[in-house]
Amino acid sequence: MQEESRTEVSSLGEFALIDHLTKNNETRNASTVLSVGDDAAVIDHFGKQTVVTTDLLIEGIHFDLMYTPLRHLGYKSVVVNLSDVYAMNAIPQQITMSIAFSNRFSVEALSELYEGVYAACGNYNVDLVGGDTTSSQRGLIISVTALGEVAPGNFVTRSGAKKGDLICVSGDLGSAFLGLTLLEREKKIWLETQGAQPDFEEQKYIVQRILKPEARKDIVNFFAEENIKPTAMLDVSDGLSSDLLHICKQSTGGCILYEEKIPFNEDARQFAYKLELDPTACALSGGEDYELLFTVDQADYDTVSKNKDISVIGYITEPEKGKKIITRGGSEHDLVAQGWNPINVKG
Amino acid sequence: MQEESRTEVSSLGEFALIDHLTKNNETRNASTVLSVGDDAAVIDHFGKQTVVTTDLLIEGIHFDLMYTPLRHLGYKSVVVNLSDVYAMNAIPQQITMSIAFSNRFSVEALSELYEGVYAACGNYNVDLVGGDTTSSQRGLIISVTALGEVAPGNFVTRSGAKKGDLICVSGDLGSAFLGLTLLEREKKIWLETQGAQPDFEEQKYIVQRILKPEARKDIVNFFAEENIKPTAMLDVSDGLSSDLLHICKQSTGGCILYEEKIPFNEDARQFAYKLELDPTACALSGGEDYELLFTVDQADYDTVSKNKDISVIGYITEPEKGKKIITRGGSEHDLVAQGWNPINVKG
Repeated sequence: MQEESRTEVSSLGEFALIDHLTKNNETRNASTVLSVGDDAAVIDHFGKQTVVTTDLLIEGIHFDLMYTPLRHLGYKSVVVNLSDVYAMNAIPQQITMSIAFSNRFSVEALSELYEGVYAACGNYNVDLVGGDTTSSQRGLIISVTALGEVAPGNFVTRSGAKKGDLICVSGDLGSAFLGLTLLEREKKIWLETQGAQPDFEEQKYIVQRILKPEARKDIVNFFAEENIKPTAMLDVSDGLSSDLLHICKQSTGGCILYEEKIPFNEDARQFAYKLELDPTACALSGGEDYELLFTVDQADYDTVSKNKDISVIGYITEPEKGKKIITRGGSEHDLVAQGWNPINVKG
Repeated sequence: MQEESRTEVSSLGEFALIDHLTKNNETRNASTVLSVGDDAAVIDHFGKQTVVTTDLLIEGIHFDLMYTPLRHLGYKSVVVNLSDVYAMNAIPQQITMSIAFSNRFSVEALSELYEGVYAACGNYNVDLVGGDTTSSQRGLIISVTALGEVAPGNFVTRSGAKKGDLICVSGDLGSAFLGLTLLEREKKIWLETQGAQPDFEEQKYIVQRILKPEARKDIVNFFAEENIKPTAMLDVSDGLSSDLLHICKQSTGGCILYEEKIPFNEDARQFAYKLELDPTACALSGGEDYELLFTVDQADYDTVSKNKDISVIGYITEPEKGKKIITRGGSEHDLVAQGWNPINVKG
């Protein structure tokens, strides 16, 4: 953390800190009746249903402050929760944000974190309505809960995919894992040769994918505009394999996935080869892409095909057919949770 | 933690652990449309407004596992959030529960924690609808978010108290602080003389007040039955002084508080004297009582007086009158956030 000045949190006290961190907090949604500053926030739903989701992010487990700017961390903490809201086919409305931090963190550092939080709130039109601010014995802990709204019954679970449905994914996959690999490599070099300047090889895209991901609100808006509803949906946080297997399990179906249809960013793919990594393995097992993985009825094929940011990558089968990936070479393998396990190759 | 068997979390994996911890999860409320197991839960409000509140509890800061049974900790983690919902004059409906834990915690230990969570859900008729389960580098971290419902506009903030309103509090105050003091004393003795049996002097009440507090749903139900609405309300978590000052500040009022009206449990009061502590100071600065502190119009005096669990302890004044406590001896002191500061005595 580079800081021009350092104000100890203890010099402010808890309530003044909260006032400081929330002084520019804006309310954007009519559904937000009462925001920060009471025992709880109050929300009106105007007949809509609410989705609620929460994530806990722990320093040293989910993020590394050696290479994560606090502003990006604040932004990402919000976005990963909004991504879960979109994955229900809902529109995010409110978040609560709790943090616990050791005395290593100054008021300036926390303000930077909140700048990222407010930037995400602005970009996604979400209100920060509450939270908790406390101390930790070690490190930074972030807990975000997001609430979103959806027309009654219009939410999409993981369990509605049926035989013949098309498996679709937004954007590209594997880039976040490549970004993480690059950051970890440079961290290791830096630790071994103190003072060495990190070399990110101009891989701006993959680094941004891991440090400052975006949630696919455009895809959920597209569904609304085109009046289509996926049969099942989730966001890709654990890797395509693991997440597609969730849909198969909860929908009691099998699947055929085509390796050649998996979308990649071209620069990321080239960089994977440079690192001697298989781009397909990065997509299957990497995770943290925060793209939407969903299934639609075959009748929606023309509609989803209109959207250049959606790729059709396979289809749902009867459960007895198993969960399979067809490689570029035409051989068939079992899809396994930790990605494509070569031990299972039967081709 | 005494355990007959120990199952490593790593032997189960994340998803099996979640299945294990949620296998007996019941849904009690019609408003819970979709619960644990998807990207988010779904809630229907049937025209009600929602209150949302969240708390982050960190081992070593908010709880000490040397003397806190995990079952009680799970129970309390839920209750402190429900208390915030009641403090809005709302009825709790759903919670999300996130935990992060080091490898010190076994599946059995986490199951014990969740037993307490489910016990609280049962007692307060609340549904556990989601959460996050992850690892920490050190210690146990718990984040709970609670959602409650309230008829449109019927919520009670901290800002509605007006001149002449009666200041009321439920139950008794200071006991939780005395319980904590006792537990900390016995911990110190135990650490200094390994093996010494702790002596809780049969102070079951105060120990229960700190380890397994309850939220005052009965008081909120009483308001509904009697058709009265407090003008301001919060729950006593920081101590009577600090919390009453919140109401004064947010309502732009002053107050007169009568020391002799502050409610105590008689055993707790006697034990305070034994520890050479002033019971009034325990009530003013102790905190963690989770009683409801509220103001009502004077016209509601007869109604609140009917309830033996409600004490009228003072009244709201014009802001210029300041925030005062009148002692048993009849002298007047400024009420300060860290309790009754003897330096301010003007008597």
